[in-house]
Amino acid sequence: MRVRNKPWASEFIAENRHIAVAQPSEYKGKWRELFGNNHPIHIEVGTGKGQFLSGMAKANPGINYIGIELFESVMVVAVQKVLESGAENLKLLNVDAADLTEIFEDGEVNRVYLNFSDPWPKKRHEKRRLTFKTYLSLYERLLEKGGEIHFKTDNQGLFEYSLRSFSEYGMLLTFVSLDLHQSGFEGNVMTEYEEKFSNKGQRIYRSEARFQNT
Amino acid sequence: MRVRNKPWASEFIAENRHIAVAQPSEYKGKWRELFGNNHPIHIEVGTGKGQFLSGMAKANPGINYIGIELFESVMVVAVQKVLESGAENLKLLNVDAADLTEIFEDGEVNRVYLNFSDPWPKKRHEKRRLTFKTYLSLYERLLEKGGEIHFKTDNQGLFEYSLRSFSEYGMLLTFVSLDLHQSGFEGNVMTEYEEKFSNKGQRIYRSEARFQNT
Repeated sequence: MRVRNKPWASEFIAENRHIAVAQPSEYKGKWRELFGNNHPIHIEVGTGKGQFLSGMAKANPGINYIGIELFESVMVVAVQKVLESGAENLKLLNVDAADLTEIFEDGEVNRVYLNFSDPWPKKRHEKRRLTFKTYLSLYERLLEKGGEIHFKTDNQGLFEYSLRSFSEYGMLLTFVSLDLHQSGFEGNVMTEYEEKFSNKGQRIYRSEARFQNT
Repeated sequence: MRVRNKPWASEFIAENRHIAVAQPSEYKGKWRELFGNNHPIHIEVGTGKGQFLSGMAKANPGINYIGIELFESVMVVAVQKVLESGAENLKLLNVDAADLTEIFEDGEVNRVYLNFSDPWPKKRHEKRRLTFKTYLSLYERLLEKGGEIHFKTDNQGLFEYSLRSFSEYGMLLTFVSLDLHQSGFEGNVMTEYEEKFSNKGQRIYRSEARFQNT
C-alpha cells in the first residue's frame, strides 16, 4: 500500500472518534459494551481503505466489525466510507497488528479476516507476513475457542506459504478455493485490491482455517 | 483414463512376470527381498502408462519403485516401458488400490505418489477419490511413521478437496505449489497427462503431506 502524506487526516480522524476509536486499549474486554450489544465481533487485520469491512457491516447488521489499520493516512479513507454509510456496527483502530493482544481480551473476538496482506516475498521478511506463526499465535489468543481466520489474496506465493503455515501451526483447513470468482462462492465482498486485480483476470485465492484449541 | 480392450495384453503381461508381479500378496512384508536390497520403497497408486515411475526409477537407482494399476490394458503399456528401459528397481502390480493392505505389511512403504488421479467430481463419488479419508487410512497403515504422500494434479477441484482432506485427517502440509512448472521446483518427472495438459498452458498443482503418527 502506497502511503501518501495527508496533513488533514489527523484532524478528520479526531473529529470522528465515534468511528475511529481514540484509545482502543481502554476497551479491552469491553468492546461489546461499546457497541451496545452482544453480537459476535469480527476483526479485519490490515483494513486499508475499508471497502471490505463497510460492505460486510452493511450486509451483516448482526455482527460487530472492527478494522485494524497501521497507516493513519490510509485509514482516513475508511473513516470517510463508514461516515457516508452510516454503519453503526463498524469501528476502526489505528494500531499495529503486533499490539492486538493489548486491544482485545483473550477469546473476545469471534473471527479474524486477512485480505490481500502484504506478501513480503523475501525469505528474510517472513516474520512480517500476517500469516507467520507469531501472528497466528496472537490471533489464537484473542479468538474464541475454535475461532477461524478467513484469508484472501491474489498472491500465489503468500497463499502457498499461508496454507503451510496454518497446517504447521496445527490449524484445520476447512475451506480452500484456488479461483474464488469462478467458484460459485456466495456472499463475497470485494476489497479495493480484489476489484482491481480480478478485473485484470487475476485469480483470487481464499481459505478458511480453524484453530483446534477446543 | 479411457480403457481400450487389448486381447494381447494378458499374454504380454504373462511373459514379463519379472516386471508385472503375478501374485503380489505373496510378497507382503517381503518386497525388499524380491528387489534384493534394503532400499526405500516408493509406490505410485494409479500408475497408468508408467512414464512417471520409469523416469523416477532411472533418476533414483537407490529407491525401489512399485506401480499399482487397476487396468491391465493400461498397465501393459507401462510394462513395455520398463522392459525397454531395463530398470531393475521397478515392479508393476495389477491390483485395486482398495486392496493395498493385502499387498504391503504395515510400515513397509516409505512414500506414496498420487499423480493425476481421477477427480470423481460428483459429490456422491467422493469415496472413490484416492485422497478420500478411507484411502488415506490405507496409506497411513502401509507407510512408515511420518511417511508422506506426494500428490500432483491439474484438477483444481480435486486439489482443493485433497488439501482439506489431508488437513481433516490430521496430516501436515509440508509443500504446496499452485503452479509447479513456474515454481523452480527441481527434479520433477512428468507423467503423460502432465505433459499433455501443461503443453496446453494448464497449471499443475503439487503438494506433500505427512502423516503425524510419530
